[in-house]
Amino acid sequence: MVLEPSAIRPEAVWERIASLARHGKHGETGVSRPVYSPEWRAAQDEVAAWCESVGLEVRWDAVGNVWGKLPGHEPGPSIVSGSHIDSQCPGGRFDGVLGVIAAVSAVSTLKERYGTPKRSIEVVSLCEEESSRFPTTGFWGSRAIRGAISDRDLDEVISFAGEPIGEVMAAAGFDPSRYAEAQRSDLAAFVELHIEQGPILEADGLPVGIVSAITGLRHYLVTVDGVSNHAGAFPMDLRKDPMAGAAEMISNVIGRAERIDRPAVTTVGRINAEPNFPAIVPDRVTFMIDARHPDPAARLALYAEHEAAIAAIAERRGLQVNVVNLKEHPPYVCDPDLVANFEAAAMNLEIPFKTMTSGAVHDTQRMATLAPGVMIFVRSKDGRSHTPAEYTSPEDAALGIATLTEGLRTLAYE
Amino acid sequence: MVLEPSAIRPEAVWERIASLARHGKHGETGVSRPVYSPEWRAAQDEVAAWCESVGLEVRWDAVGNVWGKLPGHEPGPSIVSGSHIDSQCPGGRFDGVLGVIAAVSAVSTLKERYGTPKRSIEVVSLCEEESSRFPTTGFWGSRAIRGAISDRDLDEVISFAGEPIGEVMAAAGFDPSRYAEAQRSDLAAFVELHIEQGPILEADGLPVGIVSAITGLRHYLVTVDGVSNHAGAFPMDLRKDPMAGAAEMISNVIGRAERIDRPAVTTVGRINAEPNFPAIVPDRVTFMIDARHPDPAARLALYAEHEAAIAAIAERRGLQVNVVNLKEHPPYVCDPDLVANFEAAAMNLEIPFKTMTSGAVHDTQRMATLAPGVMIFVRSKDGRSHTPAEYTSPEDAALGIATLTEGLRTLAYE
Repeated sequence: MVLEPSAIRPEAVWERIASLARHGKHGETGVSRPVYSPEWRAAQDEVAAWCESVGLEVRWDAVGNVWGKLPGHEPGPSIVSGSHIDSQCPGGRFDGVLGVIAAVSAVSTLKERYGTPKRSIEVVSLCEEESSRFPTTGFWGSRAIRGAISDRDLDEVISFAGEPIGEVMAAAGFDPSRYAEAQRSDLAAFVELHIEQGPILEADGLPVGIVSAITGLRHYLVTVDGVSNHAGAFPMDLRKDPMAGAAEMISNVIGRAERIDRPAVTTVGRINAEPNFPAIVPDRVTFMIDARHPDPAARLALYAEHEAAIAAIAERRGLQVNVVNLKEHPPYVCDPDLVANFEAAAMNLEIPFKTMTSGAVHDTQRMATLAPGVMIFVRSKDGRSHTPAEYTSPEDAALGIATLTEGLRTLAYE
Repeated sequence: MVLEPSAIRPEAVWERIASLARHGKHGETGVSRPVYSPEWRAAQDEVAAWCESVGLEVRWDAVGNVWGKLPGHEPGPSIVSGSHIDSQCPGGRFDGVLGVIAAVSAVSTLKERYGTPKRSIEVVSLCEEESSRFPTTGFWGSRAIRGAISDRDLDEVISFAGEPIGEVMAAAGFDPSRYAEAQRSDLAAFVELHIEQGPILEADGLPVGIVSAITGLRHYLVTVDGVSNHAGAFPMDLRKDPMAGAAEMISNVIGRAERIDRPAVTTVGRINAEPNFPAIVPDRVTFMIDARHPDPAARLALYAEHEAAIAAIAERRGLQVNVVNLKEHPPYVCDPDLVANFEAAAMNLEIPFKTMTSGAVHDTQRMATLAPGVMIFVRSKDGRSHTPAEYTSPEDAALGIATLTEGLRTLAYE
């Protein structure tokens, strides 16, 4: 029997958002809650208490992920839903958290209405995704579950304040040497509800998106070397001006993504000139390119075009250029059966939605080595995220959670 | 009787260069000699001693310019030659200094060979041109001579270390309240020999240039405001990306000067993005444009094209742009009679030369409010300047000084 959409009340969702936002409150609407901080601990404690109160089997794993299990009649791997509880510093009240609240609400609603499922369902509140305390955690929560942490990481993952993550874990009450115990190999599916963090649903007037693919990304560090000279005495025809080259390269790569249009995106967010004086032709300009596409082949084609354009511009201008690949995430094409299952859930509930791609990277991508995955997006106001201005209405959140609940119902009960 | 070119010996020139380079020596070939420092004082003392030793009437003015006069038979204004004695920190051994050495060498050679001139000749060793200790001196030495300093400047011209220039002058033994006494109104001509600081003479295989015009320049501070967004979740078509706009603007203004070619030059040496993170579309990009042309009308046309391009790109991309004019030097078209006089001097001495424009600004431009002016350029190695790598051969320097000497001869003795 299909869930009625009103099963998820916006007021109840909002109560949980407001309650979790107390832990690490930053200004009126912000949250600053880095992993393993006291406020992070308070938030995970609250999630554990929610799970406890609705009768789930609660368990903290070795790295601080909180799990809440509703065991099924049948043996076998669990259907898992959740997201992360840590935040940017400061970030907003919704990023990550809404997916944890959604999973708790969905599973408790299912338990209340439909009792024990056929297949086990688990809620997970991941300890870390944002890299806001340690720049190189690499999605610490899901990384531990995937078994992708090694002994060396305990010493070599260092916080912005210089602390090794092993020491910080110990101070927070975890035994870092037991990290491997967090590994799982018994997951049937991973379903993550998340705010969109972009403007597409809002522009289309839709509360909910079903994510069919999560983008792949690459970060290039481009170093353009020329010859520094006097801005007046050196004629244009004798210059080797790295700023002239860099500006052309940046225009080219951004322009290329603009012409391809959705879902390709290319961003240059960071640039530095040396010596950075107004009346001196720089001798070096460095910039970073963030280029993303969720389609594996189209992504590689985009990168090839960017690299070719950079090389050609440097060659024509007599500049030295060095392009280093600093970060690489392959795209993840979500499991088609799961996508179809959640599309059907939204349709059954008559919730307006679109099937779309994610331009941001997410835990679901990482968990894909363990189990097929899918995501549900909920409309963001003005596409804002990673800021206290981040906002999603309780009504939209409730429609997203209803979609999650109905989809989990068909997966676990039918 | 025309001077013989061998009258100026490269060895004697080199001796003076090496001797002055001791004061504020930086590494093997550099000099760090900001105005009113003990090393600056030692250098001015040495120039004064040179003038003294060849029988010139030596005088320190109120701001520390050193003058050496060879009085003529006839009353009337003086023909003046010189340049500045301060340096970048560090700079090279030639910038400014070579013009002071040239003037001393020329006037002492003339006195020795031709005796008392008809018209008085004066050497001037200007106290300051580089803004290397105080960013807003505005050519302090020639500014005092032009009467363009006011009481307020003594407190408001502040060093990089926070010292008001009045206090620094007093500590160096000058009475700052007497600055107005440095003013002159009795100059007949100003002739400045200077290293080219560019690659044009070297590229053309010529030791000497006669400068027919000194560039005008303008510095624009361009602030491009857009909307900061997530590099992944925000599609290209909904962005207002100030980096995309700034890169196009920079490409456009540099490309425009490249197509006009000599003597137009446009440089973007300074750029900053905010927040300057790799995975965030910036909300603001600021950059500075240095645009120069020695022709008054062509310069204004260049600026109009730059401004129109910036406005059009901002408009098309929906960006806010603010363009502020931070610095403005009008060009100076050198006195045609003086240009012809020094062209004739080089021709008479059979010194290969070209008539050219200066892309750098110089004291001559400022002194033009007092007297007609002209400059002589001497070839720079690799066009380098404002660095210890700055180099001009003693042979080239001697040919430049011979040209100066012969030109001063016809001005003062015929």
